[in-house]
Amino acid sequence: MSTPTAAQASDLPVNIGFVVYPGFQALDVFGPLDPLNMLSMEVPLKLSIIGPTLEPVSTKAPPVVPTVSPDFAQSIVPTHTFASPPKDLDVLIVPGGAGLMYPVELQQAQIDFVKEQYPKLKYLISVCAGASLLARAGVLDGKRATTTKAGWAWTTSTGPNVNWVPKARWVVDGNIWTTSGVVAGIDGIFAWISHVYGEDLSLKIANTFEFERHTDASYDPFADVWNVSTSVAAQASTGQSA
Amino acid sequence: MSTPTAAQASDLPVNIGFVVYPGFQALDVFGPLDPLNMLSMEVPLKLSIIGPTLEPVSTKAPPVVPTVSPDFAQSIVPTHTFASPPKDLDVLIVPGGAGLMYPVELQQAQIDFVKEQYPKLKYLISVCAGASLLARAGVLDGKRATTTKAGWAWTTSTGPNVNWVPKARWVVDGNIWTTSGVVAGIDGIFAWISHVYGEDLSLKIANTFEFERHTDASYDPFADVWNVSTSVAAQASTGQSA
Repeated sequence: MSTPTAAQASDLPVNIGFVVYPGFQALDVFGPLDPLNMLSMEVPLKLSIIGPTLEPVSTKAPPVVPTVSPDFAQSIVPTHTFASPPKDLDVLIVPGGAGLMYPVELQQAQIDFVKEQYPKLKYLISVCAGASLLARAGVLDGKRATTTKAGWAWTTSTGPNVNWVPKARWVVDGNIWTTSGVVAGIDGIFAWISHVYGEDLSLKIANTFEFERHTDASYDPFADVWNVSTSVAAQASTGQSA
Repeated sequence: MSTPTAAQASDLPVNIGFVVYPGFQALDVFGPLDPLNMLSMEVPLKLSIIGPTLEPVSTKAPPVVPTVSPDFAQSIVPTHTFASPPKDLDVLIVPGGAGLMYPVELQQAQIDFVKEQYPKLKYLISVCAGASLLARAGVLDGKRATTTKAGWAWTTSTGPNVNWVPKARWVVDGNIWTTSGVVAGIDGIFAWISHVYGEDLSLKIANTFEFERHTDASYDPFADVWNVSTSVAAQASTGQSA
């Protein structure tokens, strides 16, 4: 493996956890997870998939989300529950998904879990609208963060005290990495791997995946596609969102 | 939805199946699957996850594959088995993965399944080294196809009668779409969605996923990264591989 750049080898993260919940977005999990699968072949890592129960967790959207194929969904198997999580998690990764359209009471378990785990983590990473769970847990208050551009208005509304960055592929503030929508999570995890384990290893995995990374965190054509650049940037620059 | 371009609306594919087997590459499945999750919200689709049994299928690599974290893996839940598949599959998607390093006898069930299903399918799609299962099923014989550039030598060796295209993000020959390594499967599925359901819908989903597609099937920087461009192209041009 390449030489770690951002941490002493003895302090490298080992225990990686993913939060899953009904209606999670599949690629918000598997986009970051599969590069970690490959990373795990070269550095010692342990994986936990943490859900409400040990029953398989489906991507199926809640009834409130309009769809013509309500049964088109797939399930992943948790290894742990929010009530009995693994000890000593180093990294927690939180996906978005249509499940965020459930009433907030039904999301409280994962919000509480983020809140409870954050003080013990080396890194907290969100993908897409997963940032809303971090925001609702209060861990983004006063911090810079980004999220999905397609669901910008709703997601940012969950964190009135967050300094939302509208034009960013991902944002790092302290040990919290928030990425923009879905595939931005793949760029984000490769940037994180580069930061923690070294660029050589990140590039090696990206080449095996035939993935052309965006390595500039501020690169974001989708802010324009979804028209969030100007309106919210102006708001952020006047401090109204913080 | 946008106007279908490549098929009459009455003839659009509905029943989508994914092959899974122990040691499948997670993103080879979820890279194409998650855009289909979103497509299913706009057009009627049914999903089947087809495995050896109904037990959860793990990404865990076989013991022969070198890794320092052998237990770093996750599991997906099949809906059907190779022995009792859904009727009337329209599309079958076949991932690669380290599981292909199991002895070929242990892969025979999925090879036979591809062989048995292909004559009834509207489309057959492979991602990464999943092309080896198609090759071993004989359905690529005499056809143009591509596969992972990182694992080019091994995968192409499974199909001596296939006209392997070394420099391609994906290749279409008749109703068989073969894509290059891992993330190329995401470009491939968006190209396929565009072909079948129209470019408007494909672009809409890609924008929601914040995915910058490669829309040129011949674009392939990874053929050079993995040095397969010249050696095998020369071979193909002299017909030695066909």
